[in-house]
Amino acid sequence: MVNRQFILAARPEGMIRETDFRLVESTVPPLREGEMLVRARYLSVDPYMRGRMSAARSYAPSVDIGQVMTGGGVGEVVESRQAAFRIGDIVNFQMGWQEYAISHGENVRKVDASLAPISTAVGILGMPGLTAYYGVTEICAVKPGETFVVSGAAGAVGSAAGQIASIRGAHAVGITGGQKKVDYILRELGFHEAIDYKANPDITSALRDACPHRVDAYFDNVGGATTDAVLAYLNTFARVGICGQISQANDGAPSPGPRMYRHLLVARARVQGFLIWDFTRQEEALVDLANWIASGDLRYHEDVIEGFENMPKALIGLFLGENIGKRVVRVA
Amino acid sequence: MVNRQFILAARPEGMIRETDFRLVESTVPPLREGEMLVRARYLSVDPYMRGRMSAARSYAPSVDIGQVMTGGGVGEVVESRQAAFRIGDIVNFQMGWQEYAISHGENVRKVDASLAPISTAVGILGMPGLTAYYGVTEICAVKPGETFVVSGAAGAVGSAAGQIASIRGAHAVGITGGQKKVDYILRELGFHEAIDYKANPDITSALRDACPHRVDAYFDNVGGATTDAVLAYLNTFARVGICGQISQANDGAPSPGPRMYRHLLVARARVQGFLIWDFTRQEEALVDLANWIASGDLRYHEDVIEGFENMPKALIGLFLGENIGKRVVRVA
Repeated sequence: MVNRQFILAARPEGMIRETDFRLVESTVPPLREGEMLVRARYLSVDPYMRGRMSAARSYAPSVDIGQVMTGGGVGEVVESRQAAFRIGDIVNFQMGWQEYAISHGENVRKVDASLAPISTAVGILGMPGLTAYYGVTEICAVKPGETFVVSGAAGAVGSAAGQIASIRGAHAVGITGGQKKVDYILRELGFHEAIDYKANPDITSALRDACPHRVDAYFDNVGGATTDAVLAYLNTFARVGICGQISQANDGAPSPGPRMYRHLLVARARVQGFLIWDFTRQEEALVDLANWIASGDLRYHEDVIEGFENMPKALIGLFLGENIGKRVVRVA
Repeated sequence: MVNRQFILAARPEGMIRETDFRLVESTVPPLREGEMLVRARYLSVDPYMRGRMSAARSYAPSVDIGQVMTGGGVGEVVESRQAAFRIGDIVNFQMGWQEYAISHGENVRKVDASLAPISTAVGILGMPGLTAYYGVTEICAVKPGETFVVSGAAGAVGSAAGQIASIRGAHAVGITGGQKKVDYILRELGFHEAIDYKANPDITSALRDACPHRVDAYFDNVGGATTDAVLAYLNTFARVGICGQISQANDGAPSPGPRMYRHLLVARARVQGFLIWDFTRQEEALVDLANWIASGDLRYHEDVIEGFENMPKALIGLFLGENIGKRVVRVA
C-alpha cells in the first residue's frame, strides 16, 4: 500500500515556504505484533509546528531534515495486530503528516464519534480546546466578575478561551485582526468586547475602552506589541498565561520591546508559560467541554482545508491569519 | 520640642538630587489620648523610595510635594498616652524622614533588643530580610539541589536571599558589581558563585559558567539587561520573583530590551512580581531568620551612615551602588 508523507526538506528562515516540505511516497510495511495501521481522516495544522521546524531550543525536539513532519491527527484503524484497538476505531494521536501511520497504541486516544464530529478530536475536544480550558481555569485562574483578555481570539485556542472565561463569569475581551473576526467573536461566540488590532493599532487606548477596570487575566496567543500593551495595563494580582507567540513565530531572535518587569512588580502580577502536556486528568476537562458544547455555551468553528497535498499551504495560512477557528486538513 | 523633617521638595527627573528634599524644622505638638511620641534611632533608606517620589502609578501612593518623605525607622518611645506602649519601648514603623514621629500604635511592631541590634528591625529582621525570606521560599519556591540566582546580591535583600537559598539546599549564585562585593558574597556570605557584571558585561556567558544546569529560580532586584540574560537561560518550570528594579529606578518609561515571552513559554516558567505586604504570618519568618542568625548560617552587614541630615545622600548612594548590605542612617 502506498503512503504519502510530507518530510521536512529545509529549515525555514523567517516565514515558512512550501518548499520547506517535500511530498514523498513510500510503501506501508507489514504490521508486526502489537501494531496497528491508521488511515488519516483529519490532520491538524497548529502554530506550534513552526517551532518543530526550527533547530532552536524549544520545549520539544526539532524534526530532523528528511523526517516526516510532526503533527496530530484523527484517523481510522484499518488493520490491527494491537489487542486494544479494532478495525474501524477512530483514534487521535501524533500521526505526523502522512496518510497512513503505524502505532503501537501508546498515547493513542479513542475518539467517541457520538459526542461531536471526529475532527474535533484535534480541535475543541482535543489539544486546542484543552489548552484553552486549562489556560483559563488554572493558569489564568479566572474568577467571576473579572476582566479576561485573550489575544488571537478568533483562533482555535483563543475562541475557546474567551467563551470558557465567559462561562466562568468573566468579562471576556478578545483581541483579533479584521472585522470578520471581530464579528465572529462578538456575534457568534458572545465575547463581551472585541479589539481589532488592525483597525486600532493603538491597543493601549482600545484596552482602556474595553476594560474600564483594567485586566485581571490575560491569555496570550500572539506576543509582541499586543502583549506589551496588555502587560502595561494589568490589575493588581493579575495572571497572565503565555500559550503562543504567533506574531513572533517566524522571527529568529526575540524582537525588541519595552521591558515589562516593572509592570509585573507594580501589579504583583504573575506571568506563566504553559503547555497542555503539563496537565493531567484531561478526561474531566473533556467532559466539561463536551457538556458546554451540548448546552450551546461553547461554540466552535472548523476551517477545513481539503486534500492532504495542501498541508503546507494550510500551515502557512495560519501565520497569515487566514483561519477562523480551528484549521484542519481533510484527507481524501 | 523641635523636630527636624525632610519634606519632598521636587519630583526627581531621572536620578534623585539632594535638592529634591528640603530639611525643615517644626514644633512637636502635644500628644493626644492614644498617641505616643517616638524618637528616631535608625532610619531606613531603601530603593523603593524612588517610586514614592514619583507621581507615576505604583503599588503605593506617591508622597505629595511638601509632605514628609515616607520611610521605615526604629525608634524609642519617649512619651506615651498609648496604653500598649511604654516609655523606653523600641518600636519599628513607617516613621517617615523625621527625628520625632507621633503614632497611634497601628502597624507598629515592638522590637526585641535582645535578639539582635535594634537597627536590624529595618534590615535582616525587618522588611528586607522578610522580603528575601518570602521571595526565596514562596515566590521562587527554591528546592534542594536547584540553581538559584539573585541579582543585587550584595544588597540588603539580595545578600539575605542568596544565603536563605543556600540554607534551603540550593546552589546560590549572586550577580553583583565590583570585586569588593564579589568577595563579600563569596567569602563572608558563602555564596557558591558570583558574577561581577561590571567586570563581565557578557552576563550570558558568565551565567553559563556559573550555572551549568541552567537557572531554576531567579530573584530579581535589578531588572534591565541582567534580567534579560537570566530569563533567556531558565530551566523548565523555573520560578522568577521580581522584587526590585534598581537598575531602572531612575528611568521614566520602561527601557527597551528583547521580549522574553517566548523564553517563558519554552521553559514553562513563571515570573511573579511581589511585595512583602502580601505575606502575612511574618512572626514565623522572623523566628527562622533570628535562629539562622544565631546559628551563624545567616550573616548580614549594615552600612551605617551617621546623621539625620545625610538622609538624601544616603538614599542617592543606593542608586550608585555604594552600599554593601543594608544601609541605615543613625540619628544622633
